[in-house]
Formats: sequence, C-alpha cells, structure tokens
Amino acid sequence: MDKIPILRMGPFLLVTIQVDLYDRLALDLETDLISTVHKTGACGVLIDISAVSIVDSFMGRVLGNIASMTRVLDAETVVVGIQPAVAITLIELGLSLKGVHTALNVERGMALLQTKLGLDTGMEDDVE
Amino acid sequence: MDKIPILRMGPFLLVTIQVDLYDRLALDLETDLISTVHKTGACGVLIDISAVSIVDSFMGRVLGNIASMTRVLDAETVVVGIQPAVAITLIELGLSLKGVHTALNVERGMALLQTKLGLDTGMEDDVE
Repeated sequence: MDKIPILRMGPFLLVTIQVDLYDRLALDLETDLISTVHKTGACGVLIDISAVSIVDSFMGRVLGNIASMTRVLDAETVVVGIQPAVAITLIELGLSLKGVHTALNVERGMALLQTKLGLDTGMEDDVE
Repeated sequence: MDKIPILRMGPFLLVTIQVDLYDRLALDLETDLISTVHKTGACGVLIDISAVSIVDSFMGRVLGNIASMTRVLDAETVVVGIQPAVAITLIELGLSLKGVHTALNVERGMALLQTKLGLDTGMEDDVE
C-alpha cells in the first residue's frame, strides 16, 4: 500500500493524503497525478489533507509543485481539509501556499472549482 | 495520522482506505462512519479500496459490518476500486461480500447509489 490512489469524480480528480509523504511517495504521486490529468483531461484536482496533522516544508513544496505542474496541463488544484494546527504551522514555516487554492472541505473545494471553471455538476447544493 | 478521513460529497460519504486496517483503526472507522452518517443524514457511503492490495478475512468482515450498520441508518454502502487480485483472494477466502454493493470505481459507485436512491446530482455524466 505504498501508492496514493487518485479517484476520478466527474471532471475532477480527488487525492486523499493519509500517510507521511516521504520523498519517493511524493515523487510517485506527482508523476501519477500528472499522467492521470493528461490521460483523463481532468480540469481540476482536489487534494484532501484532513488526515494530515503534521506538516513540514517538504509537504508544502510538494503541494506547490503539484499545483504548478497541473496548471501547465490547464487544471486547477485546490487543497482542502487543512487542520487549524496545520494552517498555523504552514504560516510559521513561511509557507503561505502561494499559487495553491484552498477550501475548508471537499464540497467547498468542488464548488470553488466549479465556479472557477464555469461548470455546474449539481454537487454544490449543500454548500451555502 | 491514525484516523481514516471521511469526506462528504453531496448526499454521500467517501472513505478511502490506504493503510492496513488493524483492529483499533477498523473499530474507530466504524464508529466515526456511523456517527457521521447519523450527523449528516448521508444516504450513501462509498468505500474506496483501490489502494488495498492485500485483503484478509478481517477486512472482509469490517466491510460487511460497516454495510450492515449503515443499512440500519438507512444508508447504502458501495465498495469500489477492488483490485483483480483482491477479488480473487476474497472469493478464495470464501468472502463473497454478501450485502455489500460493489462497483468498479468511484464514479460508477456514485452512479449506482444515485440509481438506487433515485437521486440525480449530475455526476454520472462520464459513466456509460
């Protein structure tokens, strides 16, 4: 189980990070994600880090890299589910996740992507 | 990171299992899931096991338990992303996942739930 699954949800891809991102796993995730975006023509990527309680500058860099890479392929990246403690640590580390969109949870992230991309897949009903 | 995140997607909940389900983690997942179904009034649960490459009778029992528990709360459970090797092992172990719906991937699982529940959230566009 040393591979992070990438789930396709309509025009978006969803990645849930539940394990510590060590070097190899992060590189594999980047490669997998980019090739999946290319293959499926996905126009948005949601990265859920609600299970991540400890964040370091490496994780921040990986998220930034993924966002930059997907942008080249014309897909937007939204990081969702950032824990309060993680938000504090990110800022204290000087990582303000520039170029990465963020949202409170997957539903809001999906609504954000839909607004950005001018899509309407009817999933935003529960989001105020 | 010893908690499996439960993501809310419209009327459904999505759980991605990426780590080995040892006893404590499985029990916590059951409890969390049931209380989330209760709290959100979700009418379907999608469990993605595409990252699971090794399955044993314990995992099979946990999936069965979750399906039975959510059914009591009037929610359907669909297990998605079963790897071919996992499907073979499940049957060889004599676990045919009775009472658990299955689908190839999250999109098809969502379409299945929508059909079962008579919902239309417009996410099944890409599913033939």
